Amino acid sequence: MREVRSITSLSNERIKAIRALEMRKVRRETGLFVAEGVSILVTAREAGFVPTSLVYQSASAGTPMTRALNDWALREGAEVLEVSEAVIGKISGKDNPQTMLGVFQQRWTELPRTAGRGDCWLALEEIRDPGNLGTIIRTADAVGVKGIILIGNTCDPYSREAVRATMGSVFAVPLVKTTREAFLAWRAEWTGDVVGTHLDAHEDFRHAAYKGPVLLVMGSEGPGLSDSLTRACSRLVKIPMAGKLDSLNLAVATALTLYQIRGDALKI
Amino acid sequence: MREVRSITSLSNERIKAIRALEMRKVRRETGLFVAEGVSILVTAREAGFVPTSLVYQSASAGTPMTRALNDWALREGAEVLEVSEAVIGKISGKDNPQTMLGVFQQRWTELPRTAGRGDCWLALEEIRDPGNLGTIIRTADAVGVKGIILIGNTCDPYSREAVRATMGSVFAVPLVKTTREAFLAWRAEWTGDVVGTHLDAHEDFRHAAYKGPVLLVMGSEGPGLSDSLTRACSRLVKIPMAGKLDSLNLAVATALTLYQIRGDALKI
Repeated sequence: MREVRSITSLSNERIKAIRALEMRKVRRETGLFVAEGVSILVTAREAGFVPTSLVYQSASAGTPMTRALNDWALREGAEVLEVSEAVIGKISGKDNPQTMLGVFQQRWTELPRTAGRGDCWLALEEIRDPGNLGTIIRTADAVGVKGIILIGNTCDPYSREAVRATMGSVFAVPLVKTTREAFLAWRAEWTGDVVGTHLDAHEDFRHAAYKGPVLLVMGSEGPGLSDSLTRACSRLVKIPMAGKLDSLNLAVATALTLYQIRGDALKI
Repeated sequence: MREVRSITSLSNERIKAIRALEMRKVRRETGLFVAEGVSILVTAREAGFVPTSLVYQSASAGTPMTRALNDWALREGAEVLEVSEAVIGKISGKDNPQTMLGVFQQRWTELPRTAGRGDCWLALEEIRDPGNLGTIIRTADAVGVKGIILIGNTCDPYSREAVRATMGSVFAVPLVKTTREAFLAWRAEWTGDVVGTHLDAHEDFRHAAYKGPVLLVMGSEGPGLSDSLTRACSRLVKIPMAGKLDSLNLAVATALTLYQIRGDALKI
């Protein structure tokens, strides 16, 4: 079993390496990401993830939850670093800094080969806002979506802001990254409805008879679904709005549609 | 009619005064706020707002929309400032900077004295995240909520981040600011349902028979509704979730509940 290392220097190489994970380029090269906060780390543990490194502020060492997470990380062979407030302040986010964070290996899965009748998958085209993406991952988890497919040039679900917004669901929802071409080729084999929300649709999203397995495709903030993905849909639906408004926040629109599609499967 | 003033100095007093509106204290003292971007300014115009100042980047002066907005602002007696790219970069947001912004007087309304049977109001208790608040204002607009009541110590709907997230709906939805005590006293006269979402509720939010006028009360991110506001509700409902999750993003939970309450009034 490894031992806890104590670090107080901001220029320590390990600390610099963890800080560098704020850069997308470094996350891509290393395949690592940072998750901050005790409750997200507990979720990671429950989901069977193991950190490569766990970092905690020395002042929090005595709390039961910090001890339990440290024991877990050491048992699993992770590097555990006890650091000063100054150091954690440097590697944690500016707003709402946390006393503990973990470094994890990113997990990417493949486009599914089959889908059961009751399954629901979500595809997001060129989504730009990491807060929206994180919130959508959280909502997808809440309705039992089987996985999320990121199409084209999207923001990174493993960025700090996205991970935070998932509230831990980043550890629960399978993620796939693909090109538009690969997605369209794969979509041809989909046996159920491919649903898109569209301003020109004539069907109210609340009254559609979705045929499972359902693949919901959402476009990016602003432009919405591209023409090629719109044509790939078997069913276009619209969310009604009062007044002259013609759009909702993307995470809100996705949540409304997912709750409609998955409604029958959800009980309080 | 006033004339356009040209400003290229970052230390100009007018520019400094507009920049100072990034501070909540200055917004409170002056009663002013900044709205950025052509489409939000068009929404402001349609909603009958008039800017005290309009600022545009000189390079965008020739576009029809900039000209139309400038004509409007000058006609209404506003100060119009043509500025260099460096200056607009200084007063516009870092991410996604805009070529045009307006300074407006905040509008606050009073708690309503009466509400019609079909009316829906939304109250938010101690909401903390300006992005959530802006998104909620946008959604409230989309479902035709009559107004939003901010209870206690909340974030500022007139901050840059909140205004951006409203996408212009900040100009359309009446806003009320009140204390918990004043809210509870006013609530005693409410004739319809006062609805809260709560983990301990036994009623599915999709199957409740909401009695109008409906007042929906949402608690803050994390802690949710306080005990005193929970007791003030006539109906507690719950949003079902899959797996072990017990919460959704606040803007998502609010949107799901609002669409349920307002559903019958919304047609595509």
